[in-house]
Amino acid sequence: MSDKSKGFIQLLQQLTVCDSVSDKEFADRFGEISSLGDDHVICVIEDDRSGKIIATGSVFIEKKFIRNCGKVGHIEDIVVDADARGMQLGKKIISFLTDHARSVGCYKVILDCSNENRAFYEKCGFKQKEIQMVKYFT
Amino acid sequence: MSDKSKGFIQLLQQLTVCDSVSDKEFADRFGEISSLGDDHVICVIEDDRSGKIIATGSVFIEKKFIRNCGKVGHIEDIVVDADARGMQLGKKIISFLTDHARSVGCYKVILDCSNENRAFYEKCGFKQKEIQMVKYFT
Repeated sequence: MSDKSKGFIQLLQQLTVCDSVSDKEFADRFGEISSLGDDHVICVIEDDRSGKIIATGSVFIEKKFIRNCGKVGHIEDIVVDADARGMQLGKKIISFLTDHARSVGCYKVILDCSNENRAFYEKCGFKQKEIQMVKYFT
Repeated sequence: MSDKSKGFIQLLQQLTVCDSVSDKEFADRFGEISSLGDDHVICVIEDDRSGKIIATGSVFIEKKFIRNCGKVGHIEDIVVDADARGMQLGKKIISFLTDHARSVGCYKVILDCSNENRAFYEKCGFKQKEIQMVKYFT
């Protein structure tokens, strides 16, 4: 919960549109995600010196009927601070989230990325399988 | 809960690997998904004459911090029975799941598909955005 004051939202702004989030909105969303326990985990790396969060990523666990009532880990919102690149922090985040998904019994983890980031995920042991289709409401 | 006896699992087998699921496994997984309420919805179309389920799909709602604590609908496991194609059932399922995601406040819906099915989803109003990367554990 203290992550908001450590630059968590500012870090996410390096990834995509994320205006300022009020303390109440943050606390409410934090509570909703926490209530899912191991089924939705957010991982952060904090810089000891600055006290700022410099990398983050999340995984949530989808429970299916296919694959004999299997589970799939969806990795989302991976971002490493622009000033902290080249230290393998992205790999550490991916590795933590992947290990978590495996430990709770997933048969695979998936993520969507740009063509540009494909090589990075290949280094993390991922392969391209399908294409992502999107429909925006706003 | 009665869907298991209506060919639900057999229908999913047309999509991917799904061995027989015991009544207990089915009930347990059904309970887990139901407990998420509007955040994980499975839609089925039943054939009145045969009493069999001939189309299904699901959407689950991911709660994020990005996009001002936005929500994303993930559409999964769309399948129409091989004998029931050409009746726009796939479109009906996608439309129901998309409307649900919008109604609970998602800013977008996403799904992963093969290149082969891309044209179908384009007809449903989707556009390709990213690529899906996967890592299998088993």
